[in-house]
Amino acid sequence: MPIKAIVFDAYGTLYDTNSIGPAIAADFPGHAELVTALWRSKQLEYSWLRTMMHRWEDFGIVTRESLRYALETVGLSTEPAILDRLVEAQNRLTPYPEAAQALDTLSGYRLAILSNGSQPMLDALVAQSGLGRYLHAVISVDPARAFKPDPRAYALVEQHLGVAPAETLFVTGNGFDTAGAGSFGFHVARVERITTDAIRQAVTEQPPGATAMFRALRMRLEAIGFAPEAVVTTLTELPAVAASI
Amino acid sequence: MPIKAIVFDAYGTLYDTNSIGPAIAADFPGHAELVTALWRSKQLEYSWLRTMMHRWEDFGIVTRESLRYALETVGLSTEPAILDRLVEAQNRLTPYPEAAQALDTLSGYRLAILSNGSQPMLDALVAQSGLGRYLHAVISVDPARAFKPDPRAYALVEQHLGVAPAETLFVTGNGFDTAGAGSFGFHVARVERITTDAIRQAVTEQPPGATAMFRALRMRLEAIGFAPEAVVTTLTELPAVAASI
Repeated sequence: MPIKAIVFDAYGTLYDTNSIGPAIAADFPGHAELVTALWRSKQLEYSWLRTMMHRWEDFGIVTRESLRYALETVGLSTEPAILDRLVEAQNRLTPYPEAAQALDTLSGYRLAILSNGSQPMLDALVAQSGLGRYLHAVISVDPARAFKPDPRAYALVEQHLGVAPAETLFVTGNGFDTAGAGSFGFHVARVERITTDAIRQAVTEQPPGATAMFRALRMRLEAIGFAPEAVVTTLTELPAVAASI
Repeated sequence: MPIKAIVFDAYGTLYDTNSIGPAIAADFPGHAELVTALWRSKQLEYSWLRTMMHRWEDFGIVTRESLRYALETVGLSTEPAILDRLVEAQNRLTPYPEAAQALDTLSGYRLAILSNGSQPMLDALVAQSGLGRYLHAVISVDPARAFKPDPRAYALVEQHLGVAPAETLFVTGNGFDTAGAGSFGFHVARVERITTDAIRQAVTEQPPGATAMFRALRMRLEAIGFAPEAVVTTLTELPAVAASI
């Protein structure tokens, strides 16, 4: 069955989560790399733990709790004004440089975002970045009250777009999301932003830094099966991938 | 209601997960610290992801998959004989030095382990370490087909011991398990093996290194609520905690 819809993860796929760095550095000079790695690691952990514990709260809450954890771990201030400012800065992440052009060339498909982000976070992110013009839907997991990779989150795509999983290509840069989307039944293209060799070289430095550990743990394909049908290095390769399925 | 049962997490609570180091070093000299940190981090991640994805496999499988991930990340051999040997070495982890004595002093309570480990893994671990004589039950999450912190895992305690959560003290060194057990309804004592100050000092080294990053991410209390009723630094403090509830 040919592909009718292409659905994108947001954080780490269309948007560069490392672009939060300058906002952290403005409040905490010299700590941006470490706080970014701890924050993003814990943000995903908390989304998983809350889903498993049946204690779902939206990604705004999860983002704030994980930021508090990261700052406390490093011994930095967690005063409310700082938490407010940095959580809000997540709504101004930078798209990867080729994102707009790639979406433009895919206009023959129904295009959407499916993200763990809350609807207000995603609406702000899409509006400020100008990617909204290319998207038919910006889907938050909010109504499912479960985060990816819970199948209830992925099921929202068909409910919104009316396109079956077998006719949907899911695009993500996140390993857990690659496995989760494949397990659910989507066709999956993985965006590999950094090679296995580069990750290995950085993490085998003695001792490895925070970014190297983050990349080693979160920017590789997972070893739990559900391999993607395609691996691309930039979003501009997607038209060829979608046409080949 | 007084405490009738005291239930222990295994990995990181009664048993020191870092004691796998020499087995890794035997196959991969110079890589024990990094592989240990990546393996344990990913082992828990995979238990969570598989539970959320409704793709449960037992902890033996999860342990092997996460080891393969860790070794591939570092660029080390994943030949089956090595995977077999290191997975089996998990059944020979060392108990914390005070574990046997602490369990002995708690003999007035019904004592058990509730662990993500598979039943064969736990039976081997308890047998080799000699802790079996103190325990009324060694409970694997296997029958629930869900890993902690899913409530289905914690519900196995009452099924096995016939003791209600309100009469049970759950003891764990893991942050996610502290939150999960508290959310479920147990009384919870956290074992803090390393202080917040020590974690902060190590992780703010430039660069922090693998163990410091692991500790920063997995050996602190989580910031998602469900605070424990007690924090102890060794298991020998538990009689006073149990009597005070």
